[in-house]
Amino acid sequence: MFKNDFSFELITQDDKARLGKIHTPRGLIDTPAFMPVGTLGTVKGIFVDDILKTNTQIILGNTYHLMLRPGIELLKQFNGLHNFMNWNGPILTDSGGYQIMSLSKLNKIDLKLGAIFTSHLDGKKIILSPEKSIQVQKAINSDIIMVLDECPKLTKDKNILSNAIHTSTEWAKRSKTEFGNNKSKGLFGIAQGGLFKDLRTESISKLIDIDFDGYAMGGLAVGENQSDMFKILNETVDLLPIKKPRYLMGVGTPSDILGAVNEGIDMFDCVMPTRSGRTGLAFTWEGKLNLKNSKFKKDKSPLDENCDIRCLNKYSKSYLNHLIKSDEMLASMLISLNNVNFYQQFMREIRNNIKNGTFKNFYKKYINFFD
Amino acid sequence: MFKNDFSFELITQDDKARLGKIHTPRGLIDTPAFMPVGTLGTVKGIFVDDILKTNTQIILGNTYHLMLRPGIELLKQFNGLHNFMNWNGPILTDSGGYQIMSLSKLNKIDLKLGAIFTSHLDGKKIILSPEKSIQVQKAINSDIIMVLDECPKLTKDKNILSNAIHTSTEWAKRSKTEFGNNKSKGLFGIAQGGLFKDLRTESISKLIDIDFDGYAMGGLAVGENQSDMFKILNETVDLLPIKKPRYLMGVGTPSDILGAVNEGIDMFDCVMPTRSGRTGLAFTWEGKLNLKNSKFKKDKSPLDENCDIRCLNKYSKSYLNHLIKSDEMLASMLISLNNVNFYQQFMREIRNNIKNGTFKNFYKKYINFFD
Repeated sequence: MFKNDFSFELITQDDKARLGKIHTPRGLIDTPAFMPVGTLGTVKGIFVDDILKTNTQIILGNTYHLMLRPGIELLKQFNGLHNFMNWNGPILTDSGGYQIMSLSKLNKIDLKLGAIFTSHLDGKKIILSPEKSIQVQKAINSDIIMVLDECPKLTKDKNILSNAIHTSTEWAKRSKTEFGNNKSKGLFGIAQGGLFKDLRTESISKLIDIDFDGYAMGGLAVGENQSDMFKILNETVDLLPIKKPRYLMGVGTPSDILGAVNEGIDMFDCVMPTRSGRTGLAFTWEGKLNLKNSKFKKDKSPLDENCDIRCLNKYSKSYLNHLIKSDEMLASMLISLNNVNFYQQFMREIRNNIKNGTFKNFYKKYINFFD
Repeated sequence: MFKNDFSFELITQDDKARLGKIHTPRGLIDTPAFMPVGTLGTVKGIFVDDILKTNTQIILGNTYHLMLRPGIELLKQFNGLHNFMNWNGPILTDSGGYQIMSLSKLNKIDLKLGAIFTSHLDGKKIILSPEKSIQVQKAINSDIIMVLDECPKLTKDKNILSNAIHTSTEWAKRSKTEFGNNKSKGLFGIAQGGLFKDLRTESISKLIDIDFDGYAMGGLAVGENQSDMFKILNETVDLLPIKKPRYLMGVGTPSDILGAVNEGIDMFDCVMPTRSGRTGLAFTWEGKLNLKNSKFKKDKSPLDENCDIRCLNKYSKSYLNHLIKSDEMLASMLISLNNVNFYQQFMREIRNNIKNGTFKNFYKKYINFFD
């Protein structure tokens, strides 16, 4: 193994909570890690150099969106997304599967062909095969590539979930073959199985047979209760290989993250900090604040008196309340940045507490703090 | 005169073009100067610390907007707009007159009472007297305060223009009385008279009798041809006192500014750089670029290879084209910043050329460059 190969290092555990490092040629990622979402080649409303200042070490791109806009041909001319958007750190891309279900008009899942869908932008019919998804992610030049999976909507129908596992497993094999031997990048498998322990166990077992560089829990954060999500994580995360990173896709609130770290998850992504930022919702060590609320109208205190990125410690809640009410872009800019910065502070505290063996105390203090 | 008093220093002239400095307790302003517009306490889409990096020395606030939102009571609690928005440099505020005409439902101009209008936000009836406008601007804590004037729409009706001069002159006197003896701030009179030399001469003469710290040309940039604007400036700017700053309100394009400097104007404000920035229009030394145009789709060059503010020299036109087409906020953020920065570069070049006695060459080169 060369120093620059993709690899995962498990440093220590505090009960199930894990402290680790993912090494990639483009930089290391301390885990548990939060990945801000840069759907279309930009983390919405944040300058790239400010993302760096929040100590973000990896961002996520959406394959489905990027293949539609700007398109793969253009990204190839830039040798990938990093140069195109001026983000030099690692990038993880999803496979496109999730957005095909949620955004496009999905025509058909065809085991042999792939996902057949209609673009939500221009109605064009597109076929995304497992091979094509890997090719697109290679053109994006992602550092962590996800296999194409079938991600059903929240359901208790075991037949639907079983079929999805069957399709996802076949596609995972084909993805691995297409990915080939590429030690500088990581290829992650995605487990399905809804909230059923037996199904998820089956899915995980089949993925382990194929052998991936990391494993994701898919089909969660699709509308189930938090307690149901924590339960299935509690029942199945232990089945994943100890020496590989574990990624809970599309999660979540600070409390979701805390509970999942408590079950042994290492990686997270979510639009929460930026989407909330655009609606005036701020995450802070005082809790979750709705800055639209008129109780902040005369509040001279800043969101985070210790954060001098973009002078965040100088803007009062009163001023932010005014900007939101006046529909000013600067509100989204400041609160989105605050939120990503808060999430990264939160992850740092999680890591420090695992390191110090005090994670359980931290967990108890904050598990219900942001509700 | 104390060092901290408001004052104007005329350094040199190149034909009619003037190089000067406005001194204020909050900092100096090199003239000819461009003031980005911060309507509601934010220059739209730009962080305050980035505005500073563009070498912007003064910004403009809109009295009409600020008295409606966040309101004067709140601004008083922050000791003015500077603290509220974290801009420590000088601020000029207009009197509210222009927006009353253009935005609100104006009920009546009453010589005695003031402008009687209905808020465009909540339909509330408000009376803005000359005295009230000065009081509001003092609460904003503006460094340069404009008198309340009556600014008619573009018209050739000399009766309307004459009446507006009469009202504006009376209000200017009352504004001066209300302003009182305040050497740390500047109070500017506003000349009206449309495109008529005789009327504008009359208005200017009456304002000079009252004696202001600076003089503005109002009632221009209201829809007339550029050549008509340059003509009336050519005929009347010379009538203004040499030792006082001259401000052309609401102007304009780089070419408008260049032509007005050529007639002896010192100060400008306009929403052009930020409003254009939000619609994908970039001002550069290559000219005015519509970045929505698909000809930029594969263009790897940056807008300004010499500008490292927010890494502006690293983002390609191709990337900006993608962001605009994807309706991403970062497009507005990057292009607005580029445009304000370009305007300030342009003003610096104007000043350097006046200093070096080469203004006429610069004028010839750029007067039609941005059309």
